[in-house]
Amino acid sequence: MRQLNGFLYPRTETGRATLIPNPPWQYSGDLLTVEYRTDPAKVKALLPEPLDLAPEDPGAVALIWADWQSCSSSREELLDPIRSQYKEAFVVVRCSFRGVTYSRCVYIWVDKDFAIGRGLHQGYPKKLGSMWQTRPHPFSQGAPQIGPGGVFGASLAAGDRRLAEVVLTLREESETNGFVNGHPMAHHRILPGIAGGQDAYAELISSGSSSFEAGQAWSGDVDLKLFESPTEELADLTVEEIIGGYYRQVGVIWDGGNTLARQTADGSWV
Amino acid sequence: MRQLNGFLYPRTETGRATLIPNPPWQYSGDLLTVEYRTDPAKVKALLPEPLDLAPEDPGAVALIWADWQSCSSSREELLDPIRSQYKEAFVVVRCSFRGVTYSRCVYIWVDKDFAIGRGLHQGYPKKLGSMWQTRPHPFSQGAPQIGPGGVFGASLAAGDRRLAEVVLTLREESETNGFVNGHPMAHHRILPGIAGGQDAYAELISSGSSSFEAGQAWSGDVDLKLFESPTEELADLTVEEIIGGYYRQVGVIWDGGNTLARQTADGSWV
Amino acid sequence: MRQLNGFLYPRTETGRATLIPNPPWQYSGDLLTVEYRTDPAKVKALLPEPLDLAPEDPGAVALIWADWQSCSSSREELLDPIRSQYKEAFVVVRCSFRGVTYSRCVYIWVDKDFAIGRGLHQGYPKKLGSMWQTRPHPFSQGAPQIGPGGVFGASLAAGDRRLAEVVLTLREESETNGFVNGHPMAHHRILPGIAGGQDAYAELISSGSSSFEAGQAWSGDVDLKLFESPTEELADLTVEEIIGGYYRQVGVIWDGGNTLARQTADGSWV
Amino acid sequence: MRQLNGFLYPRTETGRATLIPNPPWQYSGDLLTVEYRTDPAKVKALLPEPLDLAPEDPGAVALIWADWQSCSSSREELLDPIRSQYKEAFVVVRCSFRGVTYSRCVYIWVDKDFAIGRGLHQGYPKKLGSMWQTRPHPFSQGAPQIGPGGVFGASLAAGDRRLAEVVLTLREESETNGFVNGHPMAHHRILPGIAGGQDAYAELISSGSSSFEAGQAWSGDVDLKLFESPTEELADLTVEEIIGGYYRQVGVIWDGGNTLARQTADGSWV
Repeated sequence: MRQLNGFLYPRTETGRATLIPNPPWQYSGDLLTVEYRTDPAKVKALLPEPLDLAPEDPGAVALIWADWQSCSSSREELLDPIRSQYKEAFVVVRCSFRGVTYSRCVYIWVDKDFAIGRGLHQGYPKKLGSMWQTRPHPFSQGAPQIGPGGVFGASLAAGDRRLAEVVLTLREESETNGFVNGHPMAHHRILPGIAGGQDAYAELISSGSSSFEAGQAWSGDVDLKLFESPTEELADLTVEEIIGGYYRQVGVIWDGGNTLARQTADGSWV
Repeated sequence: MRQLNGFLYPRTETGRATLIPNPPWQYSGDLLTVEYRTDPAKVKALLPEPLDLAPEDPGAVALIWADWQSCSSSREELLDPIRSQYKEAFVVVRCSFRGVTYSRCVYIWVDKDFAIGRGLHQGYPKKLGSMWQTRPHPFSQGAPQIGPGGVFGASLAAGDRRLAEVVLTLREESETNGFVNGHPMAHHRILPGIAGGQDAYAELISSGSSSFEAGQAWSGDVDLKLFESPTEELADLTVEEIIGGYYRQVGVIWDGGNTLARQTADGSWV
Repeated sequence: MRQLNGFLYPRTETGRATLIPNPPWQYSGDLLTVEYRTDPAKVKALLPEPLDLAPEDPGAVALIWADWQSCSSSREELLDPIRSQYKEAFVVVRCSFRGVTYSRCVYIWVDKDFAIGRGLHQGYPKKLGSMWQTRPHPFSQGAPQIGPGGVFGASLAAGDRRLAEVVLTLREESETNGFVNGHPMAHHRILPGIAGGQDAYAELISSGSSSFEAGQAWSGDVDLKLFESPTEELADLTVEEIIGGYYRQVGVIWDGGNTLARQTADGSWV
Repeated sequence: MRQLNGFLYPRTETGRATLIPNPPWQYSGDLLTVEYRTDPAKVKALLPEPLDLAPEDPGAVALIWADWQSCSSSREELLDPIRSQYKEAFVVVRCSFRGVTYSRCVYIWVDKDFAIGRGLHQGYPKKLGSMWQTRPHPFSQGAPQIGPGGVFGASLAAGDRRLAEVVLTLREESETNGFVNGHPMAHHRILPGIAGGQDAYAELISSGSSSFEAGQAWSGDVDLKLFESPTEELADLTVEEIIGGYYRQVGVIWDGGNTLARQTADGSWV
């Protein structure tokens, strides 16, 4: 019988129309990260079975803006950059599964459909949003540089409402650009039952970068604001204490992950 | 343990942030339909296991533009219309499974993330696109009316390339707005394996309207153009013969479907 | 010498590339209007020379959403509806010039460049925004009807910030859809001096519809909210008292206006 | 009487709502330039009174993509980058006025309203478009570097139609990034007559950078395609011979210009 081609839908004979190509997926981009502490109970409330709170600093949250250019191994998307550039903002917490600490994206907004498609595969709960992030440039007339005194702003909106905005003023070199997003990700992948009831499919998967390069990280002062929206819950992760703000340029390759657990017909996870 | 709420991701305690609410989903909108015949081999090439060609008129294709306003049972989305309005264009063929004829959407583009989310559940292979469709209006200064001589244009673009455009000139009342999209839908729902190999989940589901109202259908003359794109295969469904063009206003409720078959670990469908 | 063609820029031999065609311009659309009173001093502060406050009810403000389809006399834009559909929200006050009362648009946001181009000619101070407005439809699954109990929402955003939102619940037929936008418009058309100093050109013009048709107007209850933005001053026109909310479908033709006064080299108006 | 504030419309007491701030305007960005020769008659056909063809290489055309971050002297727009980032593509030819050679932008597309506002002042005939341009990045996973073998793509679309696309493969350092856009600009600023007839105002102005810095320019191989559109005339500037392709990062300040000539009531230019 016919086997169609294409990593995701729509599948065809040639596979050309697929929303996303086969991994590995390659990324170059700039990360603006703000880390803060919220009430750990608010993090716990976002962790479904079979996950628990991370044992240390369980209320830590990372809010990350990323300005990406990405491609498949063919690199053809770079020649038609509407197919390679996208922006995102996402919220990461940590969690624990079978004694191991993972990072977990609880909210994420992107501005391209291929990014949504990748998220379906990777378990990122992607919605569309509008993200803006100040870019560094060699000439300072209209841009900061990555260094002491460099000022970077970022904003996130969805549904024509601003959800978050930040101003980050770089102060000094940093060993890391934060710790909350530093573990392999533990994400659910779900398909609701077409006739109602339990999910037709629910899986907990883990994945991370298969390759990672990064420039010098910088840390600095943070001015962060979160805003209410009737369709979002980001502002409920209230900022109790700023941990830090960071800027870093990175190059990443992602090439799949592995299954941690699946939900069985009786609702348990094995 | 914690059961989170929300029909799709992201799931939370309140369920407020979910990309899409629980069905039923309610729709009011205008459909501009063009039906044509292509080489049946081109339709067959788009039908994966376990589907076959429809026995009658197997090369029939419907290209449909829809201008929708939609909501959940609460109707709250209608008060914040960025959450209820969207446009789409989609391509439907027919297929056969276990002796029953189904409609099947092979390509579809929408302009909102909640529409993508619904498509994940319903098995529509949704990408983002830009769709425009002439609207009727009671005053004719800048609008046609639904009636003899009414002229409606529509266009579809994705990736900053125009993929299709049509001009439909209404001529007379019609019993239907076409037959290709008239059966229950048979759609695959898939999740690729996170570690590669076979799909982690593949299901064939069927669904249709749980409630359907429609105004008088009109048919007319069609001028249809399809355009090439390196990331789309719509133009490969070449127009061999126009069947007809139709305009109709409808009100629809969708409330789930049922599973027709699932793929097993050895790749067979049961 | 060469006379180029095209109503506005860019001008060419054929005139085909011009941002906007020659008037008359034709419009069909739906208007959702909210009228309220603010402090008249706030209206006065928006009226430059040579205008004064209107003698009666000088603090009256209309905030209007419009969902338009528009075209030139050729009507060709209706066949390629990305060229004919646009949405807008605008704020109208009244003013007085040489003893005559005029309407005047003090803020306006649109979502297409051809609408900006028309505004340059007509003196509307157009910015880009994102406007959404509930649409009526014959089928009620996802839409209100224009009649008692019909509920219409609308929102306005710019710069990824929501600026205004309203919910209008229709109650009864109305003789008008308000009075603030009912006079000929008095608008400035300006070009700043390229070398600084006084405007290179400043003109006060008047224009209105050359033809106007309208359906039954409806009035109803209003729930209006204005929001702050660092780049907008709409919220400064605070709502002291709601006058009314209205819904009406209209067909309009615009075909030019006339000059009321010009600014001379010494800054005076004649 | 009341003098309102704000460089362009809408003018208010505070000036805060103005579409664009006072010059000087500061820019940091990346320029991808393709220069080619077309039939000089096609350039001449785009030059209105009182301009003539440039005496040397009169058929030379530059098609330039620019990826900008910009701000006013306050630099506050950089903290809210939706207000500072924009992309554009524009077409430049040369012309002659009173014996001096000028550059002149004949077509330009941008993606923000503040860029349109600046264009009104500077005489750029700006429309909205969708522009994409490959970005260099320190990490090569998803990006080229500015150097030998670096491959950059760019595309331009308007009205949901692709108008141009290019692939530039860098080969070697270059003394310039082209010559067509190297002169002060000579632009018309026009306002059509509100009652029809001759323009209410028509001025020929000149302006250029008040300050300019640039990195090393690179030249390379060009693959350029222009596409037809019913509302654009770019493709009519047919490519007879590629001159070169260039990439350069720049920092620019613009701070006004001067009037070259004005059109008088009898239509002549003085």
